[in-house]
Amino acid sequence: MSSNSFGKLLTVTTFGESHGPAIGCVVDGCPPGLALAPDEFRTDLERRATGRSRWTSQRREADEVEILSGVYEGRTTGTPIALVIRNTDQRSKDYGDLQDTFRPGHADYTYWQKYGIRDPRGGGRSSARETTMRVAAAVIAKKWLAERHGVRVRGFLAQIGDLVPRGAFDWDAVAQNPFFWPDASMVEELEAYMTALRKSGDSVGARVSVVADGVPPGWGEPVYGKLDGELAAALMSINAVKGVEIGDGFAAVAQHGSVHRDEITPQGFLSNHAGGILGGISTGQAVVVSIALKPTSSILVPGRSVNLAGDPVEVVTKGRHDPCVGIRATPIAEAMVALVLMDQALRHRAQCGDVGEVAPRVPGDAG
Amino acid sequence: MSSNSFGKLLTVTTFGESHGPAIGCVVDGCPPGLALAPDEFRTDLERRATGRSRWTSQRREADEVEILSGVYEGRTTGTPIALVIRNTDQRSKDYGDLQDTFRPGHADYTYWQKYGIRDPRGGGRSSARETTMRVAAAVIAKKWLAERHGVRVRGFLAQIGDLVPRGAFDWDAVAQNPFFWPDASMVEELEAYMTALRKSGDSVGARVSVVADGVPPGWGEPVYGKLDGELAAALMSINAVKGVEIGDGFAAVAQHGSVHRDEITPQGFLSNHAGGILGGISTGQAVVVSIALKPTSSILVPGRSVNLAGDPVEVVTKGRHDPCVGIRATPIAEAMVALVLMDQALRHRAQCGDVGEVAPRVPGDAG
Amino acid sequence: MSSNSFGKLLTVTTFGESHGPAIGCVVDGCPPGLALAPDEFRTDLERRATGRSRWTSQRREADEVEILSGVYEGRTTGTPIALVIRNTDQRSKDYGDLQDTFRPGHADYTYWQKYGIRDPRGGGRSSARETTMRVAAAVIAKKWLAERHGVRVRGFLAQIGDLVPRGAFDWDAVAQNPFFWPDASMVEELEAYMTALRKSGDSVGARVSVVADGVPPGWGEPVYGKLDGELAAALMSINAVKGVEIGDGFAAVAQHGSVHRDEITPQGFLSNHAGGILGGISTGQAVVVSIALKPTSSILVPGRSVNLAGDPVEVVTKGRHDPCVGIRATPIAEAMVALVLMDQALRHRAQCGDVGEVAPRVPGDAG
Amino acid sequence: MSSNSFGKLLTVTTFGESHGPAIGCVVDGCPPGLALAPDEFRTDLERRATGRSRWTSQRREADEVEILSGVYEGRTTGTPIALVIRNTDQRSKDYGDLQDTFRPGHADYTYWQKYGIRDPRGGGRSSARETTMRVAAAVIAKKWLAERHGVRVRGFLAQIGDLVPRGAFDWDAVAQNPFFWPDASMVEELEAYMTALRKSGDSVGARVSVVADGVPPGWGEPVYGKLDGELAAALMSINAVKGVEIGDGFAAVAQHGSVHRDEITPQGFLSNHAGGILGGISTGQAVVVSIALKPTSSILVPGRSVNLAGDPVEVVTKGRHDPCVGIRATPIAEAMVALVLMDQALRHRAQCGDVGEVAPRVPGDAG
Repeated sequence: MSSNSFGKLLTVTTFGESHGPAIGCVVDGCPPGLALAPDEFRTDLERRATGRSRWTSQRREADEVEILSGVYEGRTTGTPIALVIRNTDQRSKDYGDLQDTFRPGHADYTYWQKYGIRDPRGGGRSSARETTMRVAAAVIAKKWLAERHGVRVRGFLAQIGDLVPRGAFDWDAVAQNPFFWPDASMVEELEAYMTALRKSGDSVGARVSVVADGVPPGWGEPVYGKLDGELAAALMSINAVKGVEIGDGFAAVAQHGSVHRDEITPQGFLSNHAGGILGGISTGQAVVVSIALKPTSSILVPGRSVNLAGDPVEVVTKGRHDPCVGIRATPIAEAMVALVLMDQALRHRAQCGDVGEVAPRVPGDAG
Repeated sequence: MSSNSFGKLLTVTTFGESHGPAIGCVVDGCPPGLALAPDEFRTDLERRATGRSRWTSQRREADEVEILSGVYEGRTTGTPIALVIRNTDQRSKDYGDLQDTFRPGHADYTYWQKYGIRDPRGGGRSSARETTMRVAAAVIAKKWLAERHGVRVRGFLAQIGDLVPRGAFDWDAVAQNPFFWPDASMVEELEAYMTALRKSGDSVGARVSVVADGVPPGWGEPVYGKLDGELAAALMSINAVKGVEIGDGFAAVAQHGSVHRDEITPQGFLSNHAGGILGGISTGQAVVVSIALKPTSSILVPGRSVNLAGDPVEVVTKGRHDPCVGIRATPIAEAMVALVLMDQALRHRAQCGDVGEVAPRVPGDAG
Repeated sequence: MSSNSFGKLLTVTTFGESHGPAIGCVVDGCPPGLALAPDEFRTDLERRATGRSRWTSQRREADEVEILSGVYEGRTTGTPIALVIRNTDQRSKDYGDLQDTFRPGHADYTYWQKYGIRDPRGGGRSSARETTMRVAAAVIAKKWLAERHGVRVRGFLAQIGDLVPRGAFDWDAVAQNPFFWPDASMVEELEAYMTALRKSGDSVGARVSVVADGVPPGWGEPVYGKLDGELAAALMSINAVKGVEIGDGFAAVAQHGSVHRDEITPQGFLSNHAGGILGGISTGQAVVVSIALKPTSSILVPGRSVNLAGDPVEVVTKGRHDPCVGIRATPIAEAMVALVLMDQALRHRAQCGDVGEVAPRVPGDAG
Repeated sequence: MSSNSFGKLLTVTTFGESHGPAIGCVVDGCPPGLALAPDEFRTDLERRATGRSRWTSQRREADEVEILSGVYEGRTTGTPIALVIRNTDQRSKDYGDLQDTFRPGHADYTYWQKYGIRDPRGGGRSSARETTMRVAAAVIAKKWLAERHGVRVRGFLAQIGDLVPRGAFDWDAVAQNPFFWPDASMVEELEAYMTALRKSGDSVGARVSVVADGVPPGWGEPVYGKLDGELAAALMSINAVKGVEIGDGFAAVAQHGSVHRDEITPQGFLSNHAGGILGGISTGQAVVVSIALKPTSSILVPGRSVNLAGDPVEVVTKGRHDPCVGIRATPIAEAMVALVLMDQALRHRAQCGDVGEVAPRVPGDAG
């Protein structure tokens, strides 16, 4: 089953286990002519990388992307772009004592149920390591969206545990602190919160929001290819995500229609409760989505479980400890939004592009 | 673009506009041999029908399903099952005065942006009328899941505006009151709430939850075919849905890992915060999902908008008025869950059926 | 499995059995704004219809197309177009005595093997009746290709049994004789040939060629979406087809490279051995394909077979007798070529349409 | 567009240019538990390799497969299997003088038309180098088919230019001579033929046939997922293929129905004109397919063409010269047949596996 691929016209296939020799992806369907160099992947991969600060897991990988195909003389050719990252830090020994034990709240139990195989190398495909390639693939999508349509996709951490931003929203702050937090005045408070959390050996959930500015009206397809439906699938496929909201999301449950509907004037919409999507199609306003990330189950607090033999065991996850996996989910959520948007952009011009046409090329003519 | 189809092995394609001659669907991939008669569609279609009680829109359609293909002598043959329902109540006149006006919060604006066409017949494909065929298609899925795997898929209304169930949860109550409400003692209160809402000409949002009991462990596919990812896409594609949660959903944001993880004992899981899914694969516990539905924008409270000429207008939606579209979303949400589960069940036996049939594994057992 | 659908951006789903209540299709992905009326389907459906002349089966169906969705005020809306034809001539009694017998060379044996069901109603989905909906769907594709790109798709009968056209090729002759034969001087000879064949109770094979003029260079996608690969699949999916050729086809086996390659001058190609496709992408020359159709197995000559009980039986197909099913395959082959071309045209502008763009619409502006 | 992938449940994605750093593939959907080691790829890759004898191109690549993912402790895990081969022999200088020239009969013209890019590195994705990964992927499919279903897929060269096998057919001969020729007595004649051809600087076409023994009845899906339709697409996607036949193929054009139909007795079929497929579904007989390969256009005989500036030029392909590319197409054709069969096998058990496993039915047996 092609469940390691997604997207209809921009198709991304990822492969690789967290502790195998390499991870990689194939990006198929990118238009020709987009400038692309290996070092353009660095920024987003570092934003995602574990170990980006002392607040996240200490695992450190170089994450150097090699472009194996699809780019010639610095530009995409229209053929599939294969990217590979070698795993340089395969400390699978860390998990050695978990080889026969199911960790509560972890996918190793369901993978074993499905495939009948107990792969102790860090969870195989269920590891967040896989998301590295989503971020890499989305570097291409973000660039195409920006150059071609002026779309900008940015995420931020909107809640961690009980903490929410209190002050004014500031995208510059998001870019500058290690928490992707939009309120610079709270960074010290967050640091103290994380220090206490780490000491407790426990973890906490988080909420991440992504805003895509510049999306033109008309992207998205009825009925089962709705923009919000595909965003939901893409975001829910990120590790640890347990909820997805478009615009006001669950707050809409308690709203009245006279409040929720976004009124329109000749100057534009008066609000954006809809999160930029109506009937599955973009309105031209900012597309706004949020996700809920559960607290990681890999914690130092002992928990009850069973082993392969069916005996009760007490589990403590040693090795790396990431008290809030939600923080580094920010660039991953951006990535999924960008990939969905580019796919929908290509689909929109396929069906509705009858006013724009590709003329046959004639040898000897310019262009 | 095949965006009017969904599912990989059980593929459902729907067609038809709310005020055209008919709506229909093609269900492709159902195994042969399943007993199926036209009258089996009646129950769920009536549960979904507008006009099922005085609390929802007064539109009344017979919704008689005709089976055009795929069934011979009362059993499915393995070929595509086409179902058609004639639209008998096409009162498109109701919307006549909206022909040149965009309703705030309604998809007519985005459809016009996408296709350049203003179809006044009740919103075309964006109408909730389309969901009738999802419910019809899911009658097949529910039956197959029940007969083949003992899976039962049931939904209930979990919140309407600010009201939440207070008493003991009771599936029998859900089946017996017109609100799918799990607390029979609150039905009068709900009726009063709806009466007041209707008088105000306004609408309100709702929360619907669906529980699938009996799902064996192992259904769902990594990484982009995760069970929760596909549930999210399927549910978000329902009209008016703005949010999807799996298990604890957004409540997980404020939880600690020591609380959220579902501990395991030789007797089974001790909790179900995960909603029956880990790493995108079912655990064997009940699959639990919830959705947020926005308040409909078709209300009697005047709102600001523009017309096709770009002039400002005041909009009031006359004709039918459904103060809470979320109520009738309950069987639709059940339908989407059932269709996703059956598709995943078929995919699971395709990839993992090398031992004839895949029995759930039990830690401690051989094999 | 979605095997009753084909096409990636223009997706056609067909349903219906030859002797059920109706057959139909859903055409998803057609751009909005194409003029389309029910009577436009008539010409091609009559060209395909059995009974179009005394030389083909006497079955006669009105084949009136009803458009159930996707068209508003005479133009496509961009939403799925559902077409339905009621089966008015369901003489399944004709096949009554074959209910328990497998006909040699017929799909009823393999359908029974696959699904475990013996559906005597004319072969179910394996009947050529299904191809009616391909022809209907392709009316839309032919029109869009012609209006949008100036592409014309025409087929002719290139061989029947041992007979091949001897005189000058004439498209007008193809349009005027009941054999789609390009040499008017041979029509009487063909009539005599068919009369003798009918009297013998036997059948014969045929070769049909299709030429698509006006296809611009660049359509088709490497590597598994090649234009010739998709044409091959589409054409081989027609009943009774046993071979597909692009351009010179099997004649290329004995050719030298110095002959086969189509040399290029500033004035264009000097030949078209390639059939207008190189590397799976159109060259700008006419696209030329041919198919081999086997002689139908439904003949009056007795043959050996077995029944459901496994006993040897002698089979004679009574009822309608079509001595050369290949004749009416001509418009079906055209249909499949047109559908593949339109799908590829949409895909080409999705990936390579960066110079043509769809501007957002502004209410109040023209267009 | 995902046109670098094929297969529905066993999905193969290939990437890489002939003269880029590497080529590779991702095989998604292989069941877990299949034993797989890197050295198992060697035999088929050597059979395909250019330079396998002095009769084919002298290019020599080690073609060492690295397994990047999906295999743990020597067995497949059910997750995507990524295979990569480094290009060690990138002599793109050979083609330097063709940088601005279109070769007649070559895809470089159509790629430039489609993408607007002139990639001189050996034709990019249109190079036969890409087929290496098809052969590699099919090693997995062949092994699964053999172990799980006893299916054996074997090809042979059935014609080269005007030469056809004259003596008795012998699979052992196929395995032992460098031409995959089924008549050992003709090998010297073939060698002389090839020597003369090489001296002339010209090339010649070929015909390759593939036989799959042991395919059970029931594989293949109506209507657009027919086994023969998918074989046709898969085989036509091989470089230089211009025709595909199932069973008797084009010979059926001149056959009578009383000859072509394969009669059935309680002991089985009396012939196999159908090539093992009826109505798109396997009959249980051997599946037999043949392809026509054109003579390569890369020859030493000068030909007319144009350059990027539109000026007329004379083209001579220097560098490697492969007088009959059809020879090495034999293992590639086997590969495509095996991949299609495995995909269909998985799909069959998804839809029709309700009795655990689907055993071939025998007329006369119960069930």
